[in-house]
Amino acid sequence: MEWNAPSEALVLIDQTKLPSELEYLECRDVDTVVDAIQRLVVRGAPALGAVGGYGVAVAMLQGQREGWSADRLESEVLRVRDARPTAVNLAWGADRVRPFMAQGVAAVLTESDAIMVEDEAANRELSRLGADWILANVTHRPVRVLTHCNTGFLATTAWGTALGIVRELHDRGEVEVVYADETRPLLQGSRLTAWELDREGIPYFVQADGAAASTIMRGLVDVAIIGADRIARNGDTANKIGSVGVALACADADIPFVVAAPSSTVDLETVSGESIHIELRAGEEVTSLAGVRTAPDGARGFNPAFDVTPHRLISAIVSEQAVVEPDGSDVSALVQQ
Amino acid sequence: MEWNAPSEALVLIDQTKLPSELEYLECRDVDTVVDAIQRLVVRGAPALGAVGGYGVAVAMLQGQREGWSADRLESEVLRVRDARPTAVNLAWGADRVRPFMAQGVAAVLTESDAIMVEDEAANRELSRLGADWILANVTHRPVRVLTHCNTGFLATTAWGTALGIVRELHDRGEVEVVYADETRPLLQGSRLTAWELDREGIPYFVQADGAAASTIMRGLVDVAIIGADRIARNGDTANKIGSVGVALACADADIPFVVAAPSSTVDLETVSGESIHIELRAGEEVTSLAGVRTAPDGARGFNPAFDVTPHRLISAIVSEQAVVEPDGSDVSALVQQ
Repeated sequence: MEWNAPSEALVLIDQTKLPSELEYLECRDVDTVVDAIQRLVVRGAPALGAVGGYGVAVAMLQGQREGWSADRLESEVLRVRDARPTAVNLAWGADRVRPFMAQGVAAVLTESDAIMVEDEAANRELSRLGADWILANVTHRPVRVLTHCNTGFLATTAWGTALGIVRELHDRGEVEVVYADETRPLLQGSRLTAWELDREGIPYFVQADGAAASTIMRGLVDVAIIGADRIARNGDTANKIGSVGVALACADADIPFVVAAPSSTVDLETVSGESIHIELRAGEEVTSLAGVRTAPDGARGFNPAFDVTPHRLISAIVSEQAVVEPDGSDVSALVQQ
Repeated sequence: MEWNAPSEALVLIDQTKLPSELEYLECRDVDTVVDAIQRLVVRGAPALGAVGGYGVAVAMLQGQREGWSADRLESEVLRVRDARPTAVNLAWGADRVRPFMAQGVAAVLTESDAIMVEDEAANRELSRLGADWILANVTHRPVRVLTHCNTGFLATTAWGTALGIVRELHDRGEVEVVYADETRPLLQGSRLTAWELDREGIPYFVQADGAAASTIMRGLVDVAIIGADRIARNGDTANKIGSVGVALACADADIPFVVAAPSSTVDLETVSGESIHIELRAGEEVTSLAGVRTAPDGARGFNPAFDVTPHRLISAIVSEQAVVEPDGSDVSALVQQ
């Protein structure tokens, strides 16, 4: 993700085209930004934080070109802010830059750039903390990791969260293999995580999501590491659908289940997972695969995009500030006070 | 599935073509039978029992046409018998008809027909027993069911096992909705179970396998019902990959997890799940679908076709003989003594 100053556009890798094509999408108006967020051209909680910031700049520039009223600009900014409901970072990023709107586009862009810089720094720091925690809590060497969905640089501004920890472990020579759940329906694991692991030269397998539980219970992995879209005050964590199944298997096999996210993903206003709004996406994403219809005509798909892992199933939550082993009390140590 | 006497062929619905096309495959030689089993033109433990019987007849007729020696015939029969390793029924069916080979093809066909008739009767009886058990152990009405893979008439000779129980409950007016896991990599749930439920007029949703745990933990279902490919003496059950994840979620949510299979699926010779050989299928089934590559070139797929659910996670195992609530002692009551 980057801001292209000459064309006054937010430039995104089109993640829907990976791994077969590496294409970029220029966003110069709110419709394009919102559509890119909703179609998952860009996704991943930390990445959405930066998009929230730059999206405000896109709205301001479009408003200048088209002579919007202040009310119209406000409503367009909120359209970006609320384009997806579950990941807290999108609203967080937009809200962070909104106070700078009065100072002009340049100020909003400067603050958005700061989100990018801080997010990469947070990713790198949480990766060090997470790798330290895992090496202190896992005995098998090198470590065999399972992950779900995509939490690498594509999902963030750079480096990655859960996959950032994997990269950090790999840099330390401590990764044997990664089992990447393919992550249906949109295959972020198979398409994006595999593509990133391949680029990094980290050995991996792609597996069906249904294989995760038995891979864990058969003793083939030492730790599962996932990202987060929203972490409630008590540590309950919303993340890509399928995450809680991984957590259940880790609990049964008595191996650590680790959540990795920058502090911007922690939402202390949300008391517990029960209050997290889970995005229900179109059923067609389930009844087709990679453009091929898989279910009978008329079949209804049930397609919650996220699930909530209760804190009791989480061994550790890692942010750039701290590693918290949740016990039901508040996890505010993850956020700088 | 049926034996076509005029053409001396085993006729199978080609399940790889469903739901878009309803095509039949005639098997007149061992290569075609073995290929049909391995490509999953026909699958499902009870269906494979009948294929094991008829496959012996196909081998005998080919042997007559081609003048095979007794040794050659024996090795071709074993090739059918051992075409897939995990479902016990295939070998069970072949072994059941082999003593009749000395009496000629007609005797083998008569015994194979008997497998078909008995399997349907067993399916219908276990469906009654299973429905009774569920209505006695679930309070919500009508019942909301989750199932995994396909266990309907396509997977058996007629009627179905886990899906047979669903049909029985539906006939009694007791089904609200079925959540059918799509069952990656080969989508037996999305393609086959959805197709059967649609034909039966039973309301259903297709969901990603990763959604199963949260659907259960959110209280949206009252019972999960699955089939089995091999049930060990202590009740440990091999079934389609993803089953044990469903079982973990049911245990966490404190709802029943029910296994349904005819007694021919019970293998008292196998002491526990640890001794069950798990078929590892080609990685390409995970890294692509219908010719569409989903993972990067060079990505390795990890593709165990089955997993083992330990008896401690199973609320009830239903055969046509009995309902057993496994406690670690032997489950031989499932098999007529």
